[in-house]
Amino acid sequence: MEIAQNFMGPGATATMWRINENGCVVGTIIVNCEGFPETTTLDSLTAATYSTHMRNLSHYASNALKEIDVLDELVVLRLVSRKTEAVVAPDDEFHLIVVMRRNA
Amino acid sequence: MEIAQNFMGPGATATMWRINENGCVVGTIIVNCEGFPETTTLDSLTAATYSTHMRNLSHYASNALKEIDVLDELVVLRLVSRKTEAVVAPDDEFHLIVVMRRNA
Repeated sequence: MEIAQNFMGPGATATMWRINENGCVVGTIIVNCEGFPETTTLDSLTAATYSTHMRNLSHYASNALKEIDVLDELVVLRLVSRKTEAVVAPDDEFHLIVVMRRNA
Repeated sequence: MEIAQNFMGPGATATMWRINENGCVVGTIIVNCEGFPETTTLDSLTAATYSTHMRNLSHYASNALKEIDVLDELVVLRLVSRKTEAVVAPDDEFHLIVVMRRNA
């Protein structure tokens, strides 16, 4: 698996490699604050689709949480489907998205 | 913990009791296809807020998944925040929402 574009520095690359070493992981994406994939191990189209949707979802989830408790903050959003599992960890500047195969 | 209103039959009530027996569980909500809480162990306002947001979120997630793979289907959506953890399991007719305290 190759890290296609990397403007993030060696720290981020090392973290992505560590995550990708897990056999279940299909790919990782780091999304910038404008919603574009900054660094990814997936193909551009898949990365762009996941970036858009997972970022929107985490924004919506974050706002929903604030409505329930203003002091609360989103840590992780996990989306389990029949085929895959996608996790987004939001941050002020970047969002980390990990796409995994589901265990049988 | 009391199950406030129950139009769901004994099967659903038994399942909700079983889930509520877990020490981490704050409450469960069963949301009908119109987005209203049908049965809940939470207070009405909290149940209504969670119902609206979690249902919208699971709809969005479901549509996003279909855009990535038309044959895929949402199984569970898990929202982890600093204070709580909310899980929604969508179904054609009803959505089950479980709100949990986060382990330290």
